[in-house]
Amino acid sequence: MMENVDIAIIGCGPAGLSAAINVKARNRSLLLIGPQLCSSSLHKAHRINNYLGIPEMPGEDLRKAFLNHAKDMGVEVTQLSVAGIYPVGDVFQLQIQDDFIEAKAVVLTTGVVSTHHLPGEEAFTGKGVSYCATCDALFYRGKTIAVIAEAEEHEDEAIFLAEVVEKMFFLPKYEVSRKFPDNVEVISDRVKGFRGGERLETISLAERGELPVDGVFILKAQMPMSQLVPGLELENKHVRVNLEMATNVTGVYAAGDVAGRPYQVAKAVGQGQQAALSAVTYIDKV
Amino acid sequence: MMENVDIAIIGCGPAGLSAAINVKARNRSLLLIGPQLCSSSLHKAHRINNYLGIPEMPGEDLRKAFLNHAKDMGVEVTQLSVAGIYPVGDVFQLQIQDDFIEAKAVVLTTGVVSTHHLPGEEAFTGKGVSYCATCDALFYRGKTIAVIAEAEEHEDEAIFLAEVVEKMFFLPKYEVSRKFPDNVEVISDRVKGFRGGERLETISLAERGELPVDGVFILKAQMPMSQLVPGLELENKHVRVNLEMATNVTGVYAAGDVAGRPYQVAKAVGQGQQAALSAVTYIDKV
Repeated sequence: MMENVDIAIIGCGPAGLSAAINVKARNRSLLLIGPQLCSSSLHKAHRINNYLGIPEMPGEDLRKAFLNHAKDMGVEVTQLSVAGIYPVGDVFQLQIQDDFIEAKAVVLTTGVVSTHHLPGEEAFTGKGVSYCATCDALFYRGKTIAVIAEAEEHEDEAIFLAEVVEKMFFLPKYEVSRKFPDNVEVISDRVKGFRGGERLETISLAERGELPVDGVFILKAQMPMSQLVPGLELENKHVRVNLEMATNVTGVYAAGDVAGRPYQVAKAVGQGQQAALSAVTYIDKV
Repeated sequence: MMENVDIAIIGCGPAGLSAAINVKARNRSLLLIGPQLCSSSLHKAHRINNYLGIPEMPGEDLRKAFLNHAKDMGVEVTQLSVAGIYPVGDVFQLQIQDDFIEAKAVVLTTGVVSTHHLPGEEAFTGKGVSYCATCDALFYRGKTIAVIAEAEEHEDEAIFLAEVVEKMFFLPKYEVSRKFPDNVEVISDRVKGFRGGERLETISLAERGELPVDGVFILKAQMPMSQLVPGLELENKHVRVNLEMATNVTGVYAAGDVAGRPYQVAKAVGQGQQAALSAVTYIDKV
C-alpha cells in the first residue's frame, strides 16, 4: 500500500514541476507522477528565449534546470502508470496497477500528445478496445487479446494481462528486450486498424493481415483525459479550466498545455503555480 | 510627437517585462512604460524560491535578472506618466502630459498599490478632488488648489498646474529638492482629509488645520485602473480578465497582480506572456 498524500500531480513538465515546488513551499505532501524525461518537447526544443530571467537557453538545459530546482526542494518524480482517478467522498483514489493511492486534490499537467486514432479505434472503444489493463483484464479471462504498447513502462501491465488471458499478441512500438511468458507472441508489425460488427472481431496488421481477437488493449503514454478522470469536461480537446485553474470536477485542477494554448513554458509555469495554490486553498477548506 | 507602437505595456514588473519580451519575440513594436524600480515589491522581497528554474534567489537579484533579460532583447523601460487610455476607432490613444501616443493594443501590468483613501477623498472625487492634472487643470484657472504628490516624478505636472492657477499649496510625500514658482507654497504637513458641502471647500492638515482650496490634485504613483481606462470592469478591486487575459475592453489586456491574486512571480510572468500573445493575435486580426 502506497502512502496517501495531500496533492497528486500527474505530469512533470514545466507546469507539473512548478506545481510541485509550490506545494512544497506551502508544506503540503505531494506525489509527482511522470515519465522519465518529464518534458520531451522541452528536451527537443532548440532554444527558449521567452522565459523571463533565463535568456537564450537550450531547451534541454532548461529542462534540467527545472528538474534540479525541484530536486533541490525535495521533489521526486515517481514513474507510475495511472489508470484512473476517482472521487470517493472528499478524496480521490488514483488507480495504479492493482493498488490505490489517495489524494485530497489532483493537479493534471500531462501536456498534450497527438490524439491520432487508428481506424476503428473510437468505434470499438468499450466494445473490445480498452486503455486500462487493470480495469478490464477480467473480461478477457481465457480469451485471446492483442496489446499495443507505446513504451517499455507498459510491460508490467502486459504481463499482468498475460496471467489472465489464454493468448496474447504483443505489438510493441519500441524495441523489446525482456522475455515474455509462453502464451505471449511478440509481433513486429504495423497496426492498420480494427474491424468487427457489434464488437471488435479482428485487428488489422500491415503484413500479417487480419488477426482474430476478443479484445485489444492500447497502452498509451497518456490516456485520454476524459477517460482518466470520469466526467471531466473538455473544450477544444483541452481540459476546461477557469482563472484559478479549477476544472469542472471539484478538487481537480489542470495547468499547462493540457489546459489550452499557447503551448509555452512561462504560461505553463505560471498556471502550475496557480493550480497548486488553488489546490492548497481547496484542501484547507475540505 | 512620440512614435506610435503596436503594443503599449503599462507597468514593468514581472508581468510587464514578460509581456515585453514576448512581444519582442513576435517582432512587434512596443512601448514599455514603468517607474524606475519596475517592481518595488520584488526589490524588497527577501528571497524567492518558487519561480521554477531559479532557486533561492534574493528578490533584488531576480528583479535585475528580469530587467537584464529584457534589456538583452532590446526592451527599454520608458518613465512616463500615463493620464488616460482612450479607444479611438481601432487604436488607443495614451495621454502623456500634453502629448498622445497611439497603440493598437494595450497590456496593463501595473501591479497593485494600497488603495488607502483619505477621509473625504472618495466623496469629493470629481467635486474638487482630481487625479489628473492634464485633464482638469483648466477648471482651476486663477483659483487656489492643493497638490498632494507621492513622488518626484509628479513635479512636472505640479509645475504645469502652477502656470494655470493663482495659488498652489504643494504637499509632497517625499523630500523636495527643486525650486518651485513663486505662487507655489511647499508645505511639510500631514494631510488628514477633505471637507466641504456640495463641493470640496477645505483640505485638513495635521498642524496647520483647515486650508481653504477650490480643488485638490492627488498625484499618485498609480491611478485607479477604472479611471485610467474608462469603462474597464473590475472584480474585487482587480481588473476582470478571462483565460486569454482579455479585459472587457476589446484590445486591452491585463496580467499579474492587477488581474488578481495570488500575488506571485510565476503567475505574473505566465500571465504576461499570455497577455502579450493574445494582444499580438488581436492586432493581427484588426
